[in-house]
Amino acid sequence: MIVIMKAGAPKREIEKIAKRLEIMGCIPHKSQGDNYCIIGLVGDTTKVDLGQIEANENVERVLKVQHPFKLANRLFHPEDTVIEVNGVKIGDGNVIVIAGPCSVESEEQLLSIAKSVKAAGASILRGGAFKPRTSPYSFQGLGEEGLKILQKAREETGMPIITEALCPDSFDIVEQYADIIQIGARNMQNYSLLKKAGKSNKPVLLKRGLSATIEELLMAAEYIMVEGNTQVILCERGIRTFETYTRNTLDISAVPAIKELSHLPIIVDPSHAAGRWAMVSPLSMAAVAAGTDGLMIEVHNDPEHALSDGAQSLRPKKFERLMKEIESMISNH
Amino acid sequence: MIVIMKAGAPKREIEKIAKRLEIMGCIPHKSQGDNYCIIGLVGDTTKVDLGQIEANENVERVLKVQHPFKLANRLFHPEDTVIEVNGVKIGDGNVIVIAGPCSVESEEQLLSIAKSVKAAGASILRGGAFKPRTSPYSFQGLGEEGLKILQKAREETGMPIITEALCPDSFDIVEQYADIIQIGARNMQNYSLLKKAGKSNKPVLLKRGLSATIEELLMAAEYIMVEGNTQVILCERGIRTFETYTRNTLDISAVPAIKELSHLPIIVDPSHAAGRWAMVSPLSMAAVAAGTDGLMIEVHNDPEHALSDGAQSLRPKKFERLMKEIESMISNH
Amino acid sequence: MIVIMKAGAPKREIEKIAKRLEIMGCIPHKSQGDNYCIIGLVGDTTKVDLGQIEANENVERVLKVQHPFKLANRLFHPEDTVIEVNGVKIGDGNVIVIAGPCSVESEEQLLSIAKSVKAAGASILRGGAFKPRTSPYSFQGLGEEGLKILQKAREETGMPIITEALCPDSFDIVEQYADIIQIGARNMQNYSLLKKAGKSNKPVLLKRGLSATIEELLMAAEYIMVEGNTQVILCERGIRTFETYTRNTLDISAVPAIKELSHLPIIVDPSHAAGRWAMVSPLSMAAVAAGTDGLMIEVHNDPEHALSDGAQSLRPKKFERLMKEIESMISNH
Amino acid sequence: MIVIMKAGAPKREIEKIAKRLEIMGCIPHKSQGDNYCIIGLVGDTTKVDLGQIEANENVERVLKVQHPFKLANRLFHPEDTVIEVNGVKIGDGNVIVIAGPCSVESEEQLLSIAKSVKAAGASILRGGAFKPRTSPYSFQGLGEEGLKILQKAREETGMPIITEALCPDSFDIVEQYADIIQIGARNMQNYSLLKKAGKSNKPVLLKRGLSATIEELLMAAEYIMVEGNTQVILCERGIRTFETYTRNTLDISAVPAIKELSHLPIIVDPSHAAGRWAMVSPLSMAAVAAGTDGLMIEVHNDPEHALSDGAQSLRPKKFERLMKEIESMISNH
Repeated sequence: MIVIMKAGAPKREIEKIAKRLEIMGCIPHKSQGDNYCIIGLVGDTTKVDLGQIEANENVERVLKVQHPFKLANRLFHPEDTVIEVNGVKIGDGNVIVIAGPCSVESEEQLLSIAKSVKAAGASILRGGAFKPRTSPYSFQGLGEEGLKILQKAREETGMPIITEALCPDSFDIVEQYADIIQIGARNMQNYSLLKKAGKSNKPVLLKRGLSATIEELLMAAEYIMVEGNTQVILCERGIRTFETYTRNTLDISAVPAIKELSHLPIIVDPSHAAGRWAMVSPLSMAAVAAGTDGLMIEVHNDPEHALSDGAQSLRPKKFERLMKEIESMISNH
Repeated sequence: MIVIMKAGAPKREIEKIAKRLEIMGCIPHKSQGDNYCIIGLVGDTTKVDLGQIEANENVERVLKVQHPFKLANRLFHPEDTVIEVNGVKIGDGNVIVIAGPCSVESEEQLLSIAKSVKAAGASILRGGAFKPRTSPYSFQGLGEEGLKILQKAREETGMPIITEALCPDSFDIVEQYADIIQIGARNMQNYSLLKKAGKSNKPVLLKRGLSATIEELLMAAEYIMVEGNTQVILCERGIRTFETYTRNTLDISAVPAIKELSHLPIIVDPSHAAGRWAMVSPLSMAAVAAGTDGLMIEVHNDPEHALSDGAQSLRPKKFERLMKEIESMISNH
Repeated sequence: MIVIMKAGAPKREIEKIAKRLEIMGCIPHKSQGDNYCIIGLVGDTTKVDLGQIEANENVERVLKVQHPFKLANRLFHPEDTVIEVNGVKIGDGNVIVIAGPCSVESEEQLLSIAKSVKAAGASILRGGAFKPRTSPYSFQGLGEEGLKILQKAREETGMPIITEALCPDSFDIVEQYADIIQIGARNMQNYSLLKKAGKSNKPVLLKRGLSATIEELLMAAEYIMVEGNTQVILCERGIRTFETYTRNTLDISAVPAIKELSHLPIIVDPSHAAGRWAMVSPLSMAAVAAGTDGLMIEVHNDPEHALSDGAQSLRPKKFERLMKEIESMISNH
Repeated sequence: MIVIMKAGAPKREIEKIAKRLEIMGCIPHKSQGDNYCIIGLVGDTTKVDLGQIEANENVERVLKVQHPFKLANRLFHPEDTVIEVNGVKIGDGNVIVIAGPCSVESEEQLLSIAKSVKAAGASILRGGAFKPRTSPYSFQGLGEEGLKILQKAREETGMPIITEALCPDSFDIVEQYADIIQIGARNMQNYSLLKKAGKSNKPVLLKRGLSATIEELLMAAEYIMVEGNTQVILCERGIRTFETYTRNTLDISAVPAIKELSHLPIIVDPSHAAGRWAMVSPLSMAAVAAGTDGLMIEVHNDPEHALSDGAQSLRPKKFERLMKEIESMISNH
């Protein structure tokens, strides 16, 4: 941590702050320039409250040197974390594909989609039973009935299932049915939910918030890990920018950035990023080329009647074609 | 709602979509141009799923005409909503000031601050007992103990209190003590929490999410209102942009925008917007001049030892000076 | 400047970098922590190329301490710069108002508007002769004919005129007619134009770029000042964010921020920020309350036939009302 | 174009606007709903000024249906544009690589880099002679001397050269030496420069502005094309967002988006997007997988002494490795 004192800060004030930092357990090193005095801090600065230091009228700014996350930090855990779910490995260097509808709508719908995505090569089935919708007037999901349909699909296809938990309350029931529990973008900083997920023994897929930095995503993962659950899969799903042609802007750089900063697996959701089915294929290819550990793709047998996200869902035929392209790219690499 | 067909969409497909929209209860009007065919929809389009229409390969784009919120919409409720809490009115044309520390830290701290902000003219006391913190290693609030201290401060000063609820689980206990329940920016789209708040008979202060549009803020209010609780106070607290000098960018335009679009009261939180105490005063003045119904300001008796948000808290003396400036501006207006 | 070495960087590499920095004229102070080594630099670091240091594989990051602008920096020039144009002072603590149409369309139009804005209390007349338009098919301005009309308006009303220069080529002709030369948001980093403006002896109004940080705006001012022209007026006109209800997001915090960082006057353009005439009034009031040195407001006698920016122009009657509100707020303050 | 009238707009006003639109050459179709009246416009609406319509107090909003660009629009020019420079084809389905240093620093430096990038498989040489720098104190390029060195490098290697023109003034001299003229991100809306480039008979590489939408990039291309020069190569180089880990956020979706909207070739610059050399390789692979027509990569033989952009430049060895990976991906596809 580095404390930059205001130009012209009196010596006495600089000493006072340095002393206070020492009491907090840091070793301060002062460097006095012509205009500014800098105090560099060595030692464990995680307990130092940045805001308290900045509250001093003689302090210009405080800069962090170390990343604030520890358990998610590759520095302290250099090997990749590999998560295994019913035999499917995530983070071992292969690209796994999660596919399925946005929402579970009926047994017939889900089974039909599940079979076709399995045949095409997907290894995990997605489907929402509790849906976070921008409008209270939109379809909110089938709830537990949806979870039961997911269970049936797992029985019939053998694919592990991933589905979203919306709040600590309904977490337990979701946990009962799901193989991987999803925490959505809008809940990335729902700390009660993160703590709850941290106490689960099931893997958690954590989506990046709409305007979350990569560091904040890793801090959200830290919330889960600090409670004991280290099986966290991160998911880049597009961030909010001024561009309106796409629903969100896929931050493809997040893939190599997270590989640098963390040991956790990172997957990409091109369907939510683009919000347009025609872009799912090129964005999937890009994600694989950038080194993603997996893809999460929305597939619907009848997008024009989908109860949610029709505009960004691939039909099974198109998904099959995409899977072939991905396999060809990977196998030749 | 307007459906723009792709250039060259076959007539048959246009007819098919028009028919489908009719079945959904809309009256479609086609306008055929040289390159594009447009279908304008009249009637209740709230039940039409935009995504389903966009999923059609012959559809270029779907544009909404009506705002998706109804209960929060000024169009259907032209008079301003005025919310009364223990005699304090919010939204009646006056500017009310909510002040207090970021977190409740001790009885001594809160009572001292409460008395000084009351003396300076604040009418509602703020203070967090359950704190949403980016880092799991930061102070998380005193919990119920904090609520009890808030209660004591209300007894001693007579000021109504506002404090944050973080999840549906702890909502009940917060509701028991608070006069106004705050839903924080990170929880603006925590739909379980919104639904819970909608069943309360206490006023709710809903903060705009870090990257939420004004429309999304109003849709979040709609979630609360549709459950029966129409006492919603909106709060602009800065949005996330590329600018790094301030913690967030205060969207001052949100004040007149929300006054146009909705009948709900809107207040401004300059402390979180700027993240720098030296800017709280000019931003407060700006908010009042733009027509805000109130301000929410962080005040701490000892910012350098504050357990959270020290950098953006005003000392009581500075808060007093600000209150005088505000009063002088208002009284002369 | 602070150089953060990568965790585990070999001692030899740290020494090498420290030596190199010494040769560049800095005095390096090393602080060795458990995981990171930090090198704090004292002395003149403006000549040190950040990119060169970051190019070293053992360097994690380089952080700047000093602001990169000098001539625009309040640190080295504590008193406010006051700019005088034909008797009108900008930056002396009063709020001056620049008003007029987006584009000069005809003599009749400009004279009519000029007279009404003068009567209402504006002190400087604006009007574009060379227009930067997003579309090549839009009206591009009257060119020199427009400048002649502006000159006539100055003769008739006595108001100094401000108009935009689009490129170094046409700068000379604009300079010949204008009292203040405007550099638009899209040209904020048009360095050839900035250098040209730096050689002029007329004041320059420099608009903040659509996605420029405050620091970048001040660096653009520095480009002008370093050439000898220190009469620079800064202008906040809204930045680009994800919000779509307004054309841009007025960054009201830029007013106090620039007052902190620089001695140059800062004015606000609420018309371009909002893009909606109904918001010009509240945003103007907010800017004045936040401490702006002036306002630049688009006024048109017939917005529905304006050749540009009709949607954000005030009619003379509304402008008159706004001027009265502003005066009442100021006089009572 | 669609005009949405305000709720409660009087019939007379709706008629007036409809009549006015007819005079402007459009055919208006009215659709009257319960709350809103919509006027759909058929015919050539490019001449209709959106702002004039929005200036009417009874108009809520105006929505565009057609894209405002014509010459750059794939709708009116379905086949891909292929640009040929000294035998190198851009846009024909192959991926071409442009490589070289950020700035030309010396003959020795450029020739050394030119030879190594050619040997590795690059087909066009880049190098800046006139440099747009954020700080007036930074190296501004060698000017014409740099152009002469580029010419020498072309003679020795046979590679066509691309270099940037900063303003209409120096455009002629750049045009004299360059095979492709680059217009930088900060100049994307420098309309004088665009018009000048439109009169050239050399291909132009147009970079997307830091906060430009894809539509605005295409409108900037339109400015060049409308003057007669249809040889425009577009370049995605990262946009500005809240994320700070990377210098900019590479908008990988721009590649498929531009392929949908336009017939012009689109290339990607991963060096400026990331600002970190370690990310250039994964982002390059992603761009190729997403369908880019080319890459522009900064290569320097000694990044730690580079006069600009050292942090994002690849060393020749790393560039060679990247070229092999790209070739392997392409050949197997």
